[in-house]
Amino acid sequence: MDYTLKKNKVMTSITSSSYAVHFNETAYLRLNEHLSNANYSKIFILVDENTHNFCLAPFMAEIHGDYDFEVIEIEPGEINKNIETCTQVWEVLSELDADRKSVLINVGGGVVTDLGGFVASTFKRGINFINVPTTLLSMVDASVGGKTGVDLGALKNQVGVINQPEMVLVVSSFLQTLEERQMQSGFAEMLKHGLIKDHSYWNELKALSSLDAIDQLIYHSVTIKNEVVLQDPTEQNIRKILNYGHTLGHAVESYFLESPKHELLLHGEAIAVGMILEGYISYKLTGLSKDELEDIKATFLSNYPKVSFSPEDIEAILKLLKFDKKNSHGNINFVLLNKIGKPEIDVKVSQELLVESFAYYKN
Amino acid sequence: MDYTLKKNKVMTSITSSSYAVHFNETAYLRLNEHLSNANYSKIFILVDENTHNFCLAPFMAEIHGDYDFEVIEIEPGEINKNIETCTQVWEVLSELDADRKSVLINVGGGVVTDLGGFVASTFKRGINFINVPTTLLSMVDASVGGKTGVDLGALKNQVGVINQPEMVLVVSSFLQTLEERQMQSGFAEMLKHGLIKDHSYWNELKALSSLDAIDQLIYHSVTIKNEVVLQDPTEQNIRKILNYGHTLGHAVESYFLESPKHELLLHGEAIAVGMILEGYISYKLTGLSKDELEDIKATFLSNYPKVSFSPEDIEAILKLLKFDKKNSHGNINFVLLNKIGKPEIDVKVSQELLVESFAYYKN
Repeated sequence: MDYTLKKNKVMTSITSSSYAVHFNETAYLRLNEHLSNANYSKIFILVDENTHNFCLAPFMAEIHGDYDFEVIEIEPGEINKNIETCTQVWEVLSELDADRKSVLINVGGGVVTDLGGFVASTFKRGINFINVPTTLLSMVDASVGGKTGVDLGALKNQVGVINQPEMVLVVSSFLQTLEERQMQSGFAEMLKHGLIKDHSYWNELKALSSLDAIDQLIYHSVTIKNEVVLQDPTEQNIRKILNYGHTLGHAVESYFLESPKHELLLHGEAIAVGMILEGYISYKLTGLSKDELEDIKATFLSNYPKVSFSPEDIEAILKLLKFDKKNSHGNINFVLLNKIGKPEIDVKVSQELLVESFAYYKN
Repeated sequence: MDYTLKKNKVMTSITSSSYAVHFNETAYLRLNEHLSNANYSKIFILVDENTHNFCLAPFMAEIHGDYDFEVIEIEPGEINKNIETCTQVWEVLSELDADRKSVLINVGGGVVTDLGGFVASTFKRGINFINVPTTLLSMVDASVGGKTGVDLGALKNQVGVINQPEMVLVVSSFLQTLEERQMQSGFAEMLKHGLIKDHSYWNELKALSSLDAIDQLIYHSVTIKNEVVLQDPTEQNIRKILNYGHTLGHAVESYFLESPKHELLLHGEAIAVGMILEGYISYKLTGLSKDELEDIKATFLSNYPKVSFSPEDIEAILKLLKFDKKNSHGNINFVLLNKIGKPEIDVKVSQELLVESFAYYKN
């Protein structure tokens, strides 16, 4: 697929529980209104090295008014989404006299918005924060739902809170700074939105030859995620469907993150694997048809690199499942599909079938 | 004062926002009911070395039923109320297969309940927790209000969240394990409750010759704090009155915590100093009478050791004020008294008057 971008029309904002997601021109309008009304004592902007280089200047150019700004930079990459980085940011906030009336604006991908949201939610028991996702992944996934957090060793998002930002600003021009591999990674979450909620969206995404309509697609994905999250903010039931592909996908991602002999997998690449594996399990357990399973496999394999797993890899990955956040009482709970667009939650899966799913992925 | 304890009658539970504080026999009754209904996957008990030795066995003896327990021990003392200790507990919870349906029961003083509450509130984005305060300080102060958190270096409670426990169990027999100095430390918060809300309670506490009525006194203090917290859970306005004596008291406590040449001050000892200092400032700024100021000074000096401050100490302590959590827009906001029982919030104080208050304390 062609990942170049084209300009699109103005989109209305999407209202979530206590805040709104604003798009493009509207985003900057609402941000400027908010800053001029909120009387913040100081504005802190959290970036990583990449967004410092590519996004900070265009972002700052759109802010009108005379505010007291401080920029805090963290190291990029999932490997730095940890408590040590949080401690550094908490300490810098303290040194720079952040108080409870300060605001933290997180400008970056999921690492920056997840970590920044957690740091803000816990600094002096909580200051305001605003998320400005700059990757496709964080625009369609991390931007809505209030999940904040960091990894504990290789265990993804093991420490965090659910807390809502003041607003989320989706500015699609930031995507022009992304490499194709990063775009593809985000695209995996959009494909997931089709699989769990909207068969025609799945078909539309599969058939794309370019991302000319990226604004509309992001909008559609954010709408799907927002509808789910509003029904179940604390993930007691329906919100779990957003974890399709993530139970095995997270374990694969964690394993590659901590295993020195493997290259790093991006989040979308790992959950692309997870969605094939869990598609196979859905075929075996919850009635997904053979045709739809083959459709899922072919779509992901044509968009994402095929990963090799040795028997030792598979064993280690399956061991990591016990840390999945959806577990309870020693059971690993999967989200599976009855068919494309119709998920089923809290399904238990045998160890044999898990191993079998890797064999299906391989062949 | 005689700090020995006597047995008292059954007290009704106090209901806070979303949970209740239960006392003595009722506490164990409600705990057993809760555990038998909640279907927790595993029960984790957080203790420090002291409560492991003195409180864990009597606590466990009161739990009826066949549950899967794990005990996690942390190092005692404010010096260990930090993110490193949190990381250890998060890691142990992960290793011991804690899941979202697990519960953490914090059995200890303020360090254990503050840190344990924060760890539980952030582990997998939040698991249930129950607080069992074992010191007088934590019974009358940390038990109500949902403040959780840890220190960042010497900065007290700089990182934390507001989150409510499932229930709080106040079992006054644990106080028999405390040294007199620890009892006195908690007593300072009770005196504060009198100063900010109830002149006759202040008079009653001053006149005590024994703690025979400790159960009723704890109950009265918890009721006062609970009334304040229910009106303003997130400390936008009236809840700030609970910080009387704490602006300077916390700075004194932080300074002694990080300064190697000073002995450690207990929390109550530090805020006893803070309440005299802020009493003097109240006399100068908000109409506290000379008689009431003298009453406050005499009461605290007769119950708590007099602390010596060099000019360098005072300078360093005043510098720490800029980290106070009540600050905003560069202002340090004090809670002062118009008279005993009638506080005033958000008062700004000049540097000169702060220095003068230390001179008053000294003479």
